[in-house]
Amino acid sequence: MAQFLPKSPLAPARFPDLPEIQGVRFSSVAAGVKYQGRTDVMLAQMDPGTTVAGVFTRSSTRSAPVRDCQAKLGNDAQDGAAILVNSGNSNAFTGHIGQTSVAEITAAVADVTGLPETRVFTASTGVIGEPLPHDRIVAKIGELKDGLSETRIKDAAQAIMTTDTFAKGASALVEIDGQTVTIAGIAKGSGMIAPDMATMLVYIFTDAKLNADALQSMLATTCDRTFNCITVDSDTSTSDSLMLCATGASGVDVTGRDSFVAALETVMLELSHQVVRDGEGATKFVEIQITGAASDADAKVHGLSIANSPLVKTAIAGEDPNWGRVVMAIGKSGAAADRDLLAISFGDVLVAEKGWVSPNYREEDAAELMKQDEITIKVDLGLGQGHATVWTCDLTHGYIEINADYRS
Amino acid sequence: MAQFLPKSPLAPARFPDLPEIQGVRFSSVAAGVKYQGRTDVMLAQMDPGTTVAGVFTRSSTRSAPVRDCQAKLGNDAQDGAAILVNSGNSNAFTGHIGQTSVAEITAAVADVTGLPETRVFTASTGVIGEPLPHDRIVAKIGELKDGLSETRIKDAAQAIMTTDTFAKGASALVEIDGQTVTIAGIAKGSGMIAPDMATMLVYIFTDAKLNADALQSMLATTCDRTFNCITVDSDTSTSDSLMLCATGASGVDVTGRDSFVAALETVMLELSHQVVRDGEGATKFVEIQITGAASDADAKVHGLSIANSPLVKTAIAGEDPNWGRVVMAIGKSGAAADRDLLAISFGDVLVAEKGWVSPNYREEDAAELMKQDEITIKVDLGLGQGHATVWTCDLTHGYIEINADYRS
Repeated sequence: MAQFLPKSPLAPARFPDLPEIQGVRFSSVAAGVKYQGRTDVMLAQMDPGTTVAGVFTRSSTRSAPVRDCQAKLGNDAQDGAAILVNSGNSNAFTGHIGQTSVAEITAAVADVTGLPETRVFTASTGVIGEPLPHDRIVAKIGELKDGLSETRIKDAAQAIMTTDTFAKGASALVEIDGQTVTIAGIAKGSGMIAPDMATMLVYIFTDAKLNADALQSMLATTCDRTFNCITVDSDTSTSDSLMLCATGASGVDVTGRDSFVAALETVMLELSHQVVRDGEGATKFVEIQITGAASDADAKVHGLSIANSPLVKTAIAGEDPNWGRVVMAIGKSGAAADRDLLAISFGDVLVAEKGWVSPNYREEDAAELMKQDEITIKVDLGLGQGHATVWTCDLTHGYIEINADYRS
Repeated sequence: MAQFLPKSPLAPARFPDLPEIQGVRFSSVAAGVKYQGRTDVMLAQMDPGTTVAGVFTRSSTRSAPVRDCQAKLGNDAQDGAAILVNSGNSNAFTGHIGQTSVAEITAAVADVTGLPETRVFTASTGVIGEPLPHDRIVAKIGELKDGLSETRIKDAAQAIMTTDTFAKGASALVEIDGQTVTIAGIAKGSGMIAPDMATMLVYIFTDAKLNADALQSMLATTCDRTFNCITVDSDTSTSDSLMLCATGASGVDVTGRDSFVAALETVMLELSHQVVRDGEGATKFVEIQITGAASDADAKVHGLSIANSPLVKTAIAGEDPNWGRVVMAIGKSGAAADRDLLAISFGDVLVAEKGWVSPNYREEDAAELMKQDEITIKVDLGLGQGHATVWTCDLTHGYIEINADYRS
């Protein structure tokens, strides 16, 4: 199975030390949903006073848990809340029985925690189209409840992994009026990753105080600059979920505080980059910087066209500074471009400008640079002030091996 | 180099016997543009009375020859005409010197053939961003002229190959009012293939009589149902060109003749399928039939979303009937879909319906079917009358090998 894949060469050295978030406790168990010999269900429970925000996949075939979360968000409730996530089965395209599974699980969590069902959120990740054996999860909810602890966020991060080769976490502290607000988040995801959606499973917690509307608005804005700017393979999951929970336990109201938004964005950017670093088969982490576009939207279109191009991604895998393929990807994107105004650099090596290869370009300079495991491609359109940065990985034999041989 | 790749397992048994087209002569030479030990330039010359139509890549970074052809089409000239094509260098993103190369070549062809320069069309295919050594081509134009023959269309098809593993040709005869009209075409292309553009290099010749406007309109319509419905890797070339030349030598006016349009579409469909069969690394030929969509346009969006999904394509490579990935690709496409109305079949095996796996589905049936080298995926949206068929190939280690190791 996929969980025995070797760790990505781009993985961080170790899981970070995440701070405890006042008012949030975590737990995990091995319920045997599909995987054997590992944990596969996490529970997070938040204290009363918590506001919850979320962004989700826009897929028209999105999963039953996603639909359930979407229906429950958007009210101003500040009860406690719980999030239960299983790996191994996505409960997507499972017909009406999928909704039954969600209802059974949320009812059981509500029963054990004393929370209203409307404050119990779930997610499922794994194979599509097989009924979720929810009885196995329901049977473990007492054990999950008993195991809840403020120190177990890493266990939660591990329980939600599927083809991930490492658990993902990030955190930030921010000082506001002399008081410290804390943010910590976990994520999973390594294939079926594309932007313009919430993208994979991400759970972020903070002890900041903020009403649900403001939290939702802040999440949508920061998501557009982070998770919606990454792509592994242009494919979008039916289960993508990103939730942000603010317990208010610090007592610090962060409404309108730019420093908090900046800290939140830092955490989201770090988590999104960890997802790219765990891209299926990835051997290179690629940052694509677009400047001089007619608009920010155009810049993102160009960036994603480059990031999703199989020919660009295979060239990077082959350490080939094949800038002609970058030109191709810009040309096909549909966004405004003028051949004679384009400038393309690999790292600090200017390769093309004024509609042609740069007169000072030496292929050996760019070839040397392509051997690094972090590569920056810079494109200036020469048209306006629009800019965007997107992140992706290369396309290798590893991606084919993982996806031609495993059922996901 | 790529021309030594083993022949695609999906290749036809042999190059077809193409009929001669009255009023068209072909020639090829080895000019050493890039490749050694093979022909790399073709010339086709058409007699006076010929009308010419063309569709081309919409890339904003399209090549100098494409821009030159676009500028020359659209007039009602019925002089003779010539098409010169080289492989090994695309003369794309070569700045103003690229235009000089086109001018030098077209002037030389005009000089030798006695045609006006406005009736000399060119195309170049191969590496992007390197100056075209046009002197090598110009030096061979006398030899090309001397070699012209009505029987040499196969030589022309071979001269324009790049990463192609077989030469591509197709033909049709159509009876109109007791007289025979003949159509024959050649194509090249195996990577950087995506629809919504003219897609790769295709040259089709007929002795039918038709004015240039009618010819252009017919070409655009049939292109939308053939070459614009195939994809290998979602990447679109900067050089895609499809030209149709009608010499009128049969004396048969085919204006408004549906039987001629049908015959033309047959030839174009056959050539477009040959391109897919030569898709880089392809081991499976995949037809995706979409029915019941809200519109024909929506059907094509769904079909291409499935055809371009790396996860669908790798599943097919692995002979895995992973219909969950088909559900995913429909969900992300952006076109209308309702999970509970979808029906998905692999060949004649109904795998999913009513938002869930079909009750009679047995995975071993679908798994057996996936071992074939031609696979049909059928999706009925259950929403309306919109339909479309698109064609693609699988995504294999071969694609990675070809594109991570070779400069294209």
